[in-house]
Amino acid sequence: MNHNFKTAFDGRRVLITGALGFIGSNLVRRLVELGARVLLVDSLIPEYGGNLFNIAGVEDRVQVNISDVRDAHSMRYLVQGQDYLFNLAGQTSHMDSMSDPDADLEINCRAQLSILEACRKYNPGIKVIFASTRQLYGKPDYLPVDEKHLLRPVDVNGINKMAGEQYHILYNNVYGIRSCALRLTNTYGPRMRVKDARQTFLGVWIRLILEGKSFEVWEGHQLRDFTFVDDAVEAFLLAAASDAANGEIFNLGGDGVISLTELAELVVETNGGGEYLTRSYPAERKRIDIGDYYADFARIRGALGWEPRTPLCEGLSRTLAFYREHLPKYL
Amino acid sequence: MNHNFKTAFDGRRVLITGALGFIGSNLVRRLVELGARVLLVDSLIPEYGGNLFNIAGVEDRVQVNISDVRDAHSMRYLVQGQDYLFNLAGQTSHMDSMSDPDADLEINCRAQLSILEACRKYNPGIKVIFASTRQLYGKPDYLPVDEKHLLRPVDVNGINKMAGEQYHILYNNVYGIRSCALRLTNTYGPRMRVKDARQTFLGVWIRLILEGKSFEVWEGHQLRDFTFVDDAVEAFLLAAASDAANGEIFNLGGDGVISLTELAELVVETNGGGEYLTRSYPAERKRIDIGDYYADFARIRGALGWEPRTPLCEGLSRTLAFYREHLPKYL
Repeated sequence: MNHNFKTAFDGRRVLITGALGFIGSNLVRRLVELGARVLLVDSLIPEYGGNLFNIAGVEDRVQVNISDVRDAHSMRYLVQGQDYLFNLAGQTSHMDSMSDPDADLEINCRAQLSILEACRKYNPGIKVIFASTRQLYGKPDYLPVDEKHLLRPVDVNGINKMAGEQYHILYNNVYGIRSCALRLTNTYGPRMRVKDARQTFLGVWIRLILEGKSFEVWEGHQLRDFTFVDDAVEAFLLAAASDAANGEIFNLGGDGVISLTELAELVVETNGGGEYLTRSYPAERKRIDIGDYYADFARIRGALGWEPRTPLCEGLSRTLAFYREHLPKYL
Repeated sequence: MNHNFKTAFDGRRVLITGALGFIGSNLVRRLVELGARVLLVDSLIPEYGGNLFNIAGVEDRVQVNISDVRDAHSMRYLVQGQDYLFNLAGQTSHMDSMSDPDADLEINCRAQLSILEACRKYNPGIKVIFASTRQLYGKPDYLPVDEKHLLRPVDVNGINKMAGEQYHILYNNVYGIRSCALRLTNTYGPRMRVKDARQTFLGVWIRLILEGKSFEVWEGHQLRDFTFVDDAVEAFLLAAASDAANGEIFNLGGDGVISLTELAELVVETNGGGEYLTRSYPAERKRIDIGDYYADFARIRGALGWEPRTPLCEGLSRTLAFYREHLPKYL
C-alpha cells in the first residue's frame, strides 16, 4: 500500500484545512514522509484543535498559512494549484454548537460551500476528502450503523455537518469535483485535544489520569467504537488515492466495541494505575444522548480495503506514552 | 374539523413568513375566515413568490410587514406574542440555488436557525409549522416514498432545506419549542407563481396555455403527485392545531399519480384546447433529475387525519378559472 501512496502523493501539492489540529497534523506528518508538498491552513482559534506543537519536527518541511475557512478570499487563493484537499477544519463541539449555533453554521455549512465554490471556479481538477462524523446519525435505530441508516442529528453541529458533507457529494455529482466523505467515529491518539472535552472525552480522561486525578465516566454502559488516529489517516489517504471513493460516503469504525466503563478500566490498566468516578448524565447532555453507537465499516473495507489495524490497548498505550512526554504542550 | 379550527385559531395571533407567496397567501385567507389575527411577513423579492395581489380582498383584515427572514433583528421582534408561526419563507428555485448557493444558504439555513433562536429566547411557547419539501429525498430508491426514505438531495436547495427542517425538529426535541415539518410535493392552485418556473413548472404551463401559446413538457414519462393548495393549507392548519404533530415530519401527497404527459393532456382538456411540445431535458437539468416521485402520506393520515380531497381535474379547473380572470396580476 505504501508503494501506491508514494505514487499518489510524492511531489504532489496537498492542502489541509484544520491542519494543525488532531487528525490534520497526523495526516501532515504522514504526507511529509510520503514526499508531498503540504500547505497547512488553520485558524488556531484557542477553543478548537489547532496547536503548533502538533507539527514539531516537520515544521521546516511544510508551509503553514494561518487563516480561517470562513475567509472565502484566502481560501479562493489557497485552493489553486493543489492536487488534493483534505478538508478537516470544523467546529466539533456539540455544546458550543448549541450555545453559538451561528458560528457552527458559518464554519460547518457556509465555509464548506464557499470552499467547494472556490474549487469549482478555480481548481475543478482537485480531489477533496471531507471529514464527516457519526454525529449525523443521531440515536441509532439499529447496530452496527451502516451508511443506509437515516440521518437524524441530535444537535446543531450534526445538522450543519450533514449539510457540509452533502455539499461535497453534490459537487462531485453535479460538477465533477471529485469528492468523498468519511464519517468518523471516536478518533483518538497523539495530538488530540486534552485540555477539555470539546473534541473528545477520552482526551480529558488521559490528561486527568496523567495528572494523577480521577476522571469522570458518564453513565458507563454505552457502547462505542474507537479509531486510532493512524488508522483514520490511512483511510484519508486511501480515499484520496482511489477514484473508487469519488462521490462516496464511508463510515470508519473501530477495533471492536467497548462500553465506556470497560474503556475506563482499560485506560487505568494501560496507565498502570489511576481512578475514575461514574456519574449520571448532566441534564443538558441527557437531551442529546444517542445511547449505544458503533459503526459497520464493511463499505470502506470493500471499496478501499481499509480496516482498523491498531488494537485499542496498543493505541491507548501509544497515546499515554505521547502525553506522558508532552502533556504541558497541550494544557 | 372546522369547529376545531375555530377553537384553535379564532382570535389567536398568527405569524406567517412568506405570507404573500403562493401557499402563504392561501393560508392567510383561510386564517382570516377562521378569525385569526394574522401578521404577514414577506420580502417581496421579485424573483420569489410574493405578490400583494394575493391578499386582495382581505388586505384590510390583516397586518402586512415587509421584511426579510434574513433580517434577524426584525424577526426577533415579530415572533414575540405570536401563538403560531407558519414558517413558509424560502428560496425555492433549484437553478437559483446552484447559481447563487450562498443566498440559498442564507435564507434556507441561517434565517431558519435565527428564527428558531428568536423563538427560544423571546417566545418559547409558540408553535411552529415549517414548509419542507420532497426535494430532500433526491432520486427515490423506492415508490411511494415514505418518511423513512434516506435523504440525498440533488441540489443546494435540497441540502439547505434539509438543514432548515432539521433545526425545527431539533428545537422541538431539545428546547421544547413545539415544531413540525411538512414535506410538500408539487403544490398547485390559485396564486402560484406563473411568471417563470422558479416555483413550479405547472404555473408556466397554465400561463402559456392561457396566452394561447404552446408549453413544453420535459421528457414526459416521469410520474409525479400534486397537492391542490387548499389541501396543503388544511395540512398546515391540522399540524398547527394538534400536539400530535410536535417534533414530527409528514409527507404530503396527491390525489393519485400521473405522468407529466398525462398531466399535459389533462391541462389541455380542462382548458378546452391548447397544445404542448415534448422535449428532452436540458443538460443542466438532467444532472439533477430525480426520475419518478410520489409520496406515501399514510403517516399524516394516521396522525392528523389529513388526506388530499381535491381531485386533480377539479383543482386544475379552479386554477385555470383563477388565472383566466387574474393573469395580468401575475405577469
